[in-house]
Amino acid sequence: MANRSIRDGDNPELLEERRMATFDTDKMAAVIYGSEEFARRRREITDAVSKIPELADIKPYPFLTREEKVTEGTRKISILTKYLNQLIDRDNEEESLHLHREVIGYEGHPFALHDALFIPTLQSQASDEQQEKWLERARRREIIGCYAQTELGHGSNLRNLETTAVYDIASQEFVLHTPTTTALKWWPGALGKSCNYALVVAELIIKRNNYGPHFFMVQLRDEKTHIPLKGVTVGDIGPKMNFNAADNGYLGLNNLRVPRTNLLMRHCKVEADGTYVKPPHAKIGYSGMVKIRSQMAMEQGLFLAHALTIAARYSAVRRQGHLDDKQVEVKVLDYQTQQHRLFPSLARAYAFIFTGFETIHLYSQLLKDVDMGNTSGMADLHALTSGLKSVVAHETGEGIEQARMACGGHGYSMASYISVVYGIAIGGCTYEGENMVMLLQLARYLVKSVELIKAGKAKKLGPVASYLADKSDETDLTSLNGYVKMFENMARRQAWKATEKFLKLMESGESREVAWNKSAVELTRASRLHTRLFIIEAFMRRVSRIEDIPVKEVLTDLLHLHVNYELLDVATYALEFMSFTQLDYVRDQLYLYLEKIRPNAVSLVDSFQISDMQLRSVLGRRDGHVYENLFKWAKSSPLNNADVLPSVEKYLKPMMEKAKL
Amino acid sequence: MANRSIRDGDNPELLEERRMATFDTDKMAAVIYGSEEFARRRREITDAVSKIPELADIKPYPFLTREEKVTEGTRKISILTKYLNQLIDRDNEEESLHLHREVIGYEGHPFALHDALFIPTLQSQASDEQQEKWLERARRREIIGCYAQTELGHGSNLRNLETTAVYDIASQEFVLHTPTTTALKWWPGALGKSCNYALVVAELIIKRNNYGPHFFMVQLRDEKTHIPLKGVTVGDIGPKMNFNAADNGYLGLNNLRVPRTNLLMRHCKVEADGTYVKPPHAKIGYSGMVKIRSQMAMEQGLFLAHALTIAARYSAVRRQGHLDDKQVEVKVLDYQTQQHRLFPSLARAYAFIFTGFETIHLYSQLLKDVDMGNTSGMADLHALTSGLKSVVAHETGEGIEQARMACGGHGYSMASYISVVYGIAIGGCTYEGENMVMLLQLARYLVKSVELIKAGKAKKLGPVASYLADKSDETDLTSLNGYVKMFENMARRQAWKATEKFLKLMESGESREVAWNKSAVELTRASRLHTRLFIIEAFMRRVSRIEDIPVKEVLTDLLHLHVNYELLDVATYALEFMSFTQLDYVRDQLYLYLEKIRPNAVSLVDSFQISDMQLRSVLGRRDGHVYENLFKWAKSSPLNNADVLPSVEKYLKPMMEKAKL
Repeated sequence: MANRSIRDGDNPELLEERRMATFDTDKMAAVIYGSEEFARRRREITDAVSKIPELADIKPYPFLTREEKVTEGTRKISILTKYLNQLIDRDNEEESLHLHREVIGYEGHPFALHDALFIPTLQSQASDEQQEKWLERARRREIIGCYAQTELGHGSNLRNLETTAVYDIASQEFVLHTPTTTALKWWPGALGKSCNYALVVAELIIKRNNYGPHFFMVQLRDEKTHIPLKGVTVGDIGPKMNFNAADNGYLGLNNLRVPRTNLLMRHCKVEADGTYVKPPHAKIGYSGMVKIRSQMAMEQGLFLAHALTIAARYSAVRRQGHLDDKQVEVKVLDYQTQQHRLFPSLARAYAFIFTGFETIHLYSQLLKDVDMGNTSGMADLHALTSGLKSVVAHETGEGIEQARMACGGHGYSMASYISVVYGIAIGGCTYEGENMVMLLQLARYLVKSVELIKAGKAKKLGPVASYLADKSDETDLTSLNGYVKMFENMARRQAWKATEKFLKLMESGESREVAWNKSAVELTRASRLHTRLFIIEAFMRRVSRIEDIPVKEVLTDLLHLHVNYELLDVATYALEFMSFTQLDYVRDQLYLYLEKIRPNAVSLVDSFQISDMQLRSVLGRRDGHVYENLFKWAKSSPLNNADVLPSVEKYLKPMMEKAKL
Repeated sequence: MANRSIRDGDNPELLEERRMATFDTDKMAAVIYGSEEFARRRREITDAVSKIPELADIKPYPFLTREEKVTEGTRKISILTKYLNQLIDRDNEEESLHLHREVIGYEGHPFALHDALFIPTLQSQASDEQQEKWLERARRREIIGCYAQTELGHGSNLRNLETTAVYDIASQEFVLHTPTTTALKWWPGALGKSCNYALVVAELIIKRNNYGPHFFMVQLRDEKTHIPLKGVTVGDIGPKMNFNAADNGYLGLNNLRVPRTNLLMRHCKVEADGTYVKPPHAKIGYSGMVKIRSQMAMEQGLFLAHALTIAARYSAVRRQGHLDDKQVEVKVLDYQTQQHRLFPSLARAYAFIFTGFETIHLYSQLLKDVDMGNTSGMADLHALTSGLKSVVAHETGEGIEQARMACGGHGYSMASYISVVYGIAIGGCTYEGENMVMLLQLARYLVKSVELIKAGKAKKLGPVASYLADKSDETDLTSLNGYVKMFENMARRQAWKATEKFLKLMESGESREVAWNKSAVELTRASRLHTRLFIIEAFMRRVSRIEDIPVKEVLTDLLHLHVNYELLDVATYALEFMSFTQLDYVRDQLYLYLEKIRPNAVSLVDSFQISDMQLRSVLGRRDGHVYENLFKWAKSSPLNNADVLPSVEKYLKPMMEKAKL
């Protein structure tokens, strides 16, 4: 059997879909998740979790108040702590991520930053003695930590952080202080209520000299009572668009004193007498950010996959209207408009995941290079991941919302759960670097590259930018390589054009900053085209390496859909290099591949193997029994606990009675 | 003073902005709201409401649980009932809408459908005797009603509703029945918990003949106890993406009997012996839908205005990074990327509101014509509003999300409130006709129009479609009329092209339905272009009628921004009619007008005169005191009621203690 999701008793609508699969969904999962081994481990973890009743949701998440969500996240994390060694290899980040997604979902928990930033920062920034003191305790979860950097008044611009750590030579202490309301640390996950320690980023000041932002270990709460220490003002920043099981917090410090040895001193040092010893390499703190961004394409791809799983399955269950058959209504998945809403996003989900694998691989490669003293790849990867993060998070958000709307009215119900996935995914446009800022960081790299070429130094270009030095050729669209050439033409033209605009403005007398700002939108356009080119190439590279023929065939269809959709989407740029006849051809190809994908659509989403537990969606259930479960779900929702609501007794009944008089 | 929003003690950042206004914001408000009279009434209502303490929010809405939101909506509506006559002219729909938006906001209340559909349907569908029986009681709010049409298994396809009303001649009763789970009425606002009556849409069946959907008055709950009657299963459908103060409901009817006279019989009749008397005009029930859609452009424009008010004000308060001045950080509103995120949407907000006025006017004109027996304009307006509803709701959603992201991290906090506005507005892509279905309804009209032209009957075209018969001319972009011509060229070309594709597929042997489906995406493209053309023209018509020079000047700038942005957005189509040099000109114009709008940006959003109460946003406060109020808001959020959460006591403390052993 090719689709492995078939079970007895399934809705026949989905059975029919799954029987059309032309490939083995387990083999596709191995391609999606990078190895047969990890795809199998995912299934095993899902299976093991399903057998531990205390790890199940106490209620559907949408029925919980915010306080209940925080409690539920905390309950789950404390229970998971018991089972961790039994369920996963704790050193395997991917297994851990999958486990947490299954059990806790997307809405957050008190250990989010503890594992993702607190411990890694201790590992990379704390000296050996400091690690001895704190790292094991943190690993054993004796203490809970977070990472406190952004402030109420400042996000991405680290140079203007207001929190200070002034060194007091007499007592050999740092005095940490947030002098204004805008200096309050704001947003760090789990800072508000859960953590008792924080790594606080503050401007290091010695004898009135500012040495810039550094990390300080700060105890926030008493380890026994959990009550905030004197000088510490800490609390939750209030409800958010999503992540409401997490207690993102604020933190004010009122001349709080910590010992000199609480400055993380792996790379820099402050001696007892106040002598500052510089770190050997200025960019050493940089790579954590690049790491997280390099994982984002994969993560966002999975968010998109989540939403599409729900929408594609539901679209095969929902019938509405008629085509040829006047007796039986048609599955809404048979409408071209529905396919056009879902399938290009499906191609993107695959593309993003494959691109994510590549950047994660590039990142590990970079770490090895840096260890060997070679930091030349840093700028390339930083630029690449900045662009990817922006483009992928933006297109993921669009795709998720279209998936939700493709579910009609029921998509709007929390029973679809798609709006939660949207809320989480769209955060990616803002966190880890605001999208416009990120696109402009990539643009800086592109402009530098063009300037290198103009200076005759094209050989110094990073591998991702080398096409910028090529000549734009006429190309045909008879092969995938033709599409790549077309995207190269477009990305190259726009990078040069935006650079020229910027340079011309400077020549005309504008300052560098003003010229940059006046070219900014054109520069972001260049960054987007460059990034989309990279995604297409990564998709192609991955497909070319697949050995299983049926899997390769359907992914080749998806790739064709992708290149045609993408090209049409930016055809304004393409028309400098192709004719309207070619454009019509691209359109026809697009519609052709929508039809080609149709029979495999449900199997392509099944291949993501996102369990019902993780989907948390009535519409997206594997078994397709949507309607009876929507009714069940609704009946159990909290508002239905009473037939007559207290508010009806209190307000509506008296109002109606009074009107009768 | 030109900007009327200036008060003592405001944040100087906003004061500086407002002092740059080149026009009078009260005069602009009169243009936005159609008359000086209504703009003034809005301010008076806002002012009056602010003086009635019991109409204030008991807490910021984001701090309320769903149950508390329902209670709060109910409390407010019952208090408002007392004050209605004092605060507004009850016959004035606009005043009523404004009042409800101020006091209750966007998240719903138990009378949403009572006023908007229950009473109007009684007015248009109930006979005089029936009106006497129910209408006055409904108006006095002795009873609360809703309108129950969509079912769990069927939304827009009315022909396949499953609920039946079988006439029993012996007892002269209708037997109402929902035979399956999918037949449950699903979604009607206030049906779940608040209403005691419903107008139920059911298939009328007499002697096994199905006469199609009809309206039946059905009592759901006992008027005294509010307990559901026998045969009635009713409840809340659970939490939604938004509208969570509303109890959208489900309804099952188990062979419930109602008297023959509960069929609404203004236009059709069922005699005691089961004789069915047809309504005189088949489309008579149609116009309610057209009315609501004709108001949607205005409504969505105001949602967009709401989000932009928040984002523009906050962008003038938030400082981040540097341009020329290395000492003082720059307002983020000075970044071109930020302007590009906000100002084209600002132009659209104005455009949508102006377009809304036109369609509302066309609707009243239509009603007069229909009264005179002339229904010829019906199809035109139906097509127009179908397209408008789709394009405007889609672009509004995009614009609101961009506004939220323009606020960076704080945009993601519920303190911005933008995500609530998004949740409400984006519902407009689905309710009142799913967007794709709507675009295809307009497409049907466009195809018919092209077929008329091909048949030599161009004179029969509706006024909105007459341009389809013109020849495509070369045009220049030196005047606004040039842009209109360009949009006509594009919309015409695409309408013809999509029609040809459809006809060709039929010629090649496909059935009408299949040919239609295979052309569907191209047809929706035609509908979008046609609609965007109409919006541009409506914007131009409105600006041309303005007398106040300063107001006209700034709106002319906004109009120029609009046409350039819109043209660039669909340049793929435009390039068939213009050169790349012209395209570069359009880009330059776009950036030029972003700069031109900049000094008036805050004053342009101030002109919407959306009160702080209605904004419900800490970021968007009129006085600009954002940061201290964010802190205040956060401190008062429910999670901060205790320093140490119960979940910390119960789960985290034991976990940490155990780890120490």
